Amino acid sequence: MVEPELKRVTVTSDFWKRYQELVVSEVLPYQWAVMNDEADINMSKDPQKIEGADKNSHAVANLKIAAGQMEGHHYGFPFQDTDVYKWLEAAAYSFSYHPNPELKTITDNLIDLIADAQDDDGYLSTYFQIDAPERKFKRLQQSHELYTMGHYIEAGVAYHDATGNEKALEIAKRMADCIVRNFGTEDDQIDGYDGHPEIELALSRLYEATHEKKYLDEAHYFLQVRGTKPGFFEKQNEADGLERDIIPGMREAGERYYLDAQPIADQETADGHAVRVVYLCTGMAYVARLTGDETLLEACHRFWKDIVKRRMYVTGNVGSTTTGEAFTYDYDLPNDTMYGETCASVGMTFFARQMSLLETNSEYADVIEKELFNGALSGMALDGKHFFYVNPLEADPKASTFNPGKSHVLTHRADWFGCACCPANLARLITSLDQYIYDVKPGEVLSNQFISNDAEFANGLSIKQTSNFPWEGNIHFDITNATGETTQLGIRLPNWSKSNYSVTVNGTATQLEAKNGYLYVPIAQASTTIDIVLDMNTKFMRASNRVSADFGKYAVQRGPIVFCAEETDNDASLWQYEVSPKSETHYSFQPNLLEGVGTITVNAKLPQEDEDGVDLYTEATAEQLRDAKLKLVPYYAWANREDGAMQVWLNKE
Amino acid sequence: MVEPELKRVTVTSDFWKRYQELVVSEVLPYQWAVMNDEADINMSKDPQKIEGADKNSHAVANLKIAAGQMEGHHYGFPFQDTDVYKWLEAAAYSFSYHPNPELKTITDNLIDLIADAQDDDGYLSTYFQIDAPERKFKRLQQSHELYTMGHYIEAGVAYHDATGNEKALEIAKRMADCIVRNFGTEDDQIDGYDGHPEIELALSRLYEATHEKKYLDEAHYFLQVRGTKPGFFEKQNEADGLERDIIPGMREAGERYYLDAQPIADQETADGHAVRVVYLCTGMAYVARLTGDETLLEACHRFWKDIVKRRMYVTGNVGSTTTGEAFTYDYDLPNDTMYGETCASVGMTFFARQMSLLETNSEYADVIEKELFNGALSGMALDGKHFFYVNPLEADPKASTFNPGKSHVLTHRADWFGCACCPANLARLITSLDQYIYDVKPGEVLSNQFISNDAEFANGLSIKQTSNFPWEGNIHFDITNATGETTQLGIRLPNWSKSNYSVTVNGTATQLEAKNGYLYVPIAQASTTIDIVLDMNTKFMRASNRVSADFGKYAVQRGPIVFCAEETDNDASLWQYEVSPKSETHYSFQPNLLEGVGTITVNAKLPQEDEDGVDLYTEATAEQLRDAKLKLVPYYAWANREDGAMQVWLNKE
Ligand SMILES: [Zn+2]
Ligand SMILES: [Zn+2]
Repeated sequence: MVEPELKRVTVTSDFWKRYQELVVSEVLPYQWAVMNDEADINMSKDPQKIEGADKNSHAVANLKIAAGQMEGHHYGFPFQDTDVYKWLEAAAYSFSYHPNPELKTITDNLIDLIADAQDDDGYLSTYFQIDAPERKFKRLQQSHELYTMGHYIEAGVAYHDATGNEKALEIAKRMADCIVRNFGTEDDQIDGYDGHPEIELALSRLYEATHEKKYLDEAHYFLQVRGTKPGFFEKQNEADGLERDIIPGMREAGERYYLDAQPIADQETADGHAVRVVYLCTGMAYVARLTGDETLLEACHRFWKDIVKRRMYVTGNVGSTTTGEAFTYDYDLPNDTMYGETCASVGMTFFARQMSLLETNSEYADVIEKELFNGALSGMALDGKHFFYVNPLEADPKASTFNPGKSHVLTHRADWFGCACCPANLARLITSLDQYIYDVKPGEVLSNQFISNDAEFANGLSIKQTSNFPWEGNIHFDITNATGETTQLGIRLPNWSKSNYSVTVNGTATQLEAKNGYLYVPIAQASTTIDIVLDMNTKFMRASNRVSADFGKYAVQRGPIVFCAEETDNDASLWQYEVSPKSETHYSFQPNLLEGVGTITVNAKLPQEDEDGVDLYTEATAEQLRDAKLKLVPYYAWANREDGAMQVWLNKE
Repeated sequence: MVEPELKRVTVTSDFWKRYQELVVSEVLPYQWAVMNDEADINMSKDPQKIEGADKNSHAVANLKIAAGQMEGHHYGFPFQDTDVYKWLEAAAYSFSYHPNPELKTITDNLIDLIADAQDDDGYLSTYFQIDAPERKFKRLQQSHELYTMGHYIEAGVAYHDATGNEKALEIAKRMADCIVRNFGTEDDQIDGYDGHPEIELALSRLYEATHEKKYLDEAHYFLQVRGTKPGFFEKQNEADGLERDIIPGMREAGERYYLDAQPIADQETADGHAVRVVYLCTGMAYVARLTGDETLLEACHRFWKDIVKRRMYVTGNVGSTTTGEAFTYDYDLPNDTMYGETCASVGMTFFARQMSLLETNSEYADVIEKELFNGALSGMALDGKHFFYVNPLEADPKASTFNPGKSHVLTHRADWFGCACCPANLARLITSLDQYIYDVKPGEVLSNQFISNDAEFANGLSIKQTSNFPWEGNIHFDITNATGETTQLGIRLPNWSKSNYSVTVNGTATQLEAKNGYLYVPIAQASTTIDIVLDMNTKFMRASNRVSADFGKYAVQRGPIVFCAEETDNDASLWQYEVSPKSETHYSFQPNLLEGVGTITVNAKLPQEDEDGVDLYTEATAEQLRDAKLKLVPYYAWANREDGAMQVWLNKE
């Protein structure tokens, strides 16, 4: 039997085509201009901004200086190079749906520049090459060198895949060889690891592209050694000069921040810097799948469960505190002081995708869907030129301005950031969306996402999925099977539709029970049509009552979309609206609002607002409530109009 | 007619006698030992602790070094001296109810030491004398020099009043003369002010003690000049050497922090460091009363209204953010990330007392009562040896440990603090409690507090108030009037009893209507008895619905006491209990609990706790609630047992 190898997926979804084309028409040119210091941007809103850094990124210039094409010093964070690499990776994916010779000239030249910037031994990290060559690999807690090269390796593999550019892959291999040479247990090697995990997933990816086992072994090594070298970072810092921090404050962040307090096998909870956690998890799942390492697999399950069942916001965002951009503790999910970095949501989709490849369970694609339609997508404005780093579930411009504990929460997306990890990370997710739709496993094809697409498989199978998702839940599949073999098509039954769905196969209503969360339809005939009707009722969601921040509150969800209330749509203060699971709701699609969104109006209750300046505390009596309409819009689309408050969780009646 | 000048008030209240004696038996000896570096304390819990400062205060040693009795360097904050002065002031007041020759020997010697430490020109600030004499008055933004001397002036006046020690007053006058000489509009003077207001109230107090108008004029000058010298602090900092901060970070705090952004007359809201605000307000009210300055009076009313009607917690605490220990904005009253410094509550009682002297309105004494029985008193453990700097209305040891945004919130009182402003501040409030009970005004005596006492007036009037307040609301007055004159006795009708009270005069039920919040009883006969019965029903309080943090929540209050739930008394997570204004409650006094407290049991509702690790978000259905008892204890007494969570605001059913 010939496995139905996936040949090509073309996203046809109206919702996602708009985003994919936006990345090509706006995001990529805009970010390229920023990285070349040619954009007219204002970084005044950036709470992470570097002292004196009010404009642009200098990221391409850093490469040019390292390549000897320019004079000057490195500027920006030590990982500034990664902005370029993630942008390159996003561009590479975009060629699959939008051939773009002009862009390709730029990216080919960029590959040449990167090759020129690379040292003879494969090393590439412009900060160290330009301004601190004697400190290479000497302060890994803060240097981000492997993280930086890992990001290139990802980009190089993607660019080679997309364009066949061999130089792109060669650079990646030379970097990886440099790392393999320098890190390990031999006497002349560094027996240690990078402060920021990423290289593990990158080397795994390079292994999959090249089948060179040394890369997988090195990724495996990094996962096994992490946390087993007490004081590794401190010793390096001391040898390098304790006070000579590359990034101020990073010595005080603590071992938990770096996932370095214990071996991974002993880490019970997903603690530390959220992006580090999800990147490490992605690497773990990658290596667990490729090696069968049971210890890593257990760690993957443990971290997955801890994050998804105890530490994830209803929108998919993760990271409960701005201090260290980190996880805090189980069920601690404050909505107004949270972090929810865009990168952390992007990283969760990477982790979920690897888990989904590792084992068949729809909960992984459920999380991917949650991130795609909510927590990750929120990171970009509808214009493709403004970005959130922090994604709160409750925000108020007054609070952000006058309560310093919320000063990290922007209520409008910024032009750019001093630490610009998020924009290109989201861009590469959107341009690679085709990779998230199918998993192909022995004897079965899993359709994970309700993103309209045309898919062709090497064995002649083709699947055409059409719908008006996420606004409508009627999903149509047209399947052509020229193989003569029977393929099992597993269609994900989303967790929000589990108790309410119908399936029609070739016009006949069919009772199907989900297995591991998938509805399996055998595809035997030359031509099969499947119609799935999903539950698009508006739902009031509640959090586990272990979550103090959400107790007595409801979030409104319809399909995969989590909604929020914005000040601009509503007259009263948002917290004053009271709703109940019995509140009537009205859904309507508004084509001219926010590039076309579904909106929900809730028949809520509202008290008379108390007068300003009267007694602050009074004896409580039965509330006098009046009927009021509360208008909700999708969370991902908030903050695209006038500045104002926003709230996902609504108070109960 | 002879005004009934107050001669002597003796507190006889069981509740307050215990605290007053506790200060004598525990607090004063303990703090004296700490200040002499002789106490065995652990400062590990102190979130404000100075690098390397793990033990004791060195405050007395600083004075000895300045006096030439010891060698060494200054240690601690530049305002370390004030710990000694506030302690001295607390001791001075204690002599009025607890004669104490042994302590008086110590305090007399301390006066001698302070006199020896004082420079010939009256200057005294040991940090500058010992380690930076060339910087005196050169960096007022951070130096706290006038603040420090102001605290001595208060102590010196109090000590002179209590003991007749003339040297104590002389030191104060020499300090004040030094300040009068150095600050003003003459060419050879500094036309500016201290970063931390305090000197204004201190000089006013010295004026009242000495009737020397120059002191009042100087206080008035400081209030008029504040905020009118743009860049005053910056210019001083630059001249002194920009980077040479005395306290790190204070250059970046911003003008609002120092109440220096505008002239006081133009400041619309009570912004900035909370203790600075309330000390400045106290000085303003003092000077407004003594000078009749209408501009200051208006500012007093404006700030009072903004704080009490928009920025005060139900317990009387103020300061909504740890960043800058500051106010934030109107109606921003988060319960779990707040600050509520003990000093700020103590300072509010000072402000309220001055307002009460300035004009007859019971709302001032209402706030004093709120602070005394809740927000200020919470600052000290029942053992008199542990203290809160931060007083939250919601706390959880897990949150304080694992969510850095709450790391400033302790869930157990600390032994001591690197910045130890709070313990002695509360001590001096408790030992001077007799001063808060009566206001004497032309033709009337106002009884402000239900604190049992024996009061004698110079004209022969005597008032004996007895009750078991705050646990019972039957207040009895025995009044002897030997004067032959009729005095109007105004008894404050507390805001929590306005709609439910009764008055009996000489055994006859009497209908009285409150005027300015006071029930006036003419005292004409030689002997009068008055019985007031106050409303001691348990009340569910709500906040203005402009306060998002308290929306849909209730606080329980009985008499002046605000209650809270503690984990140690209750099985379920505190936020899961749901109450309504209709919930039945049961009050009982428990003599063996927490040194004797009233407790309230609420018939609450409780959901089944969700299982750990199941789906974090589920579709909401009607809640299944069971009956549950929620036990509450007085807020001031929390955190005196095992470590655990605490909550004032309870979720609604
Ligand atoms: Zn990011
Ligand atoms: Zn204090």
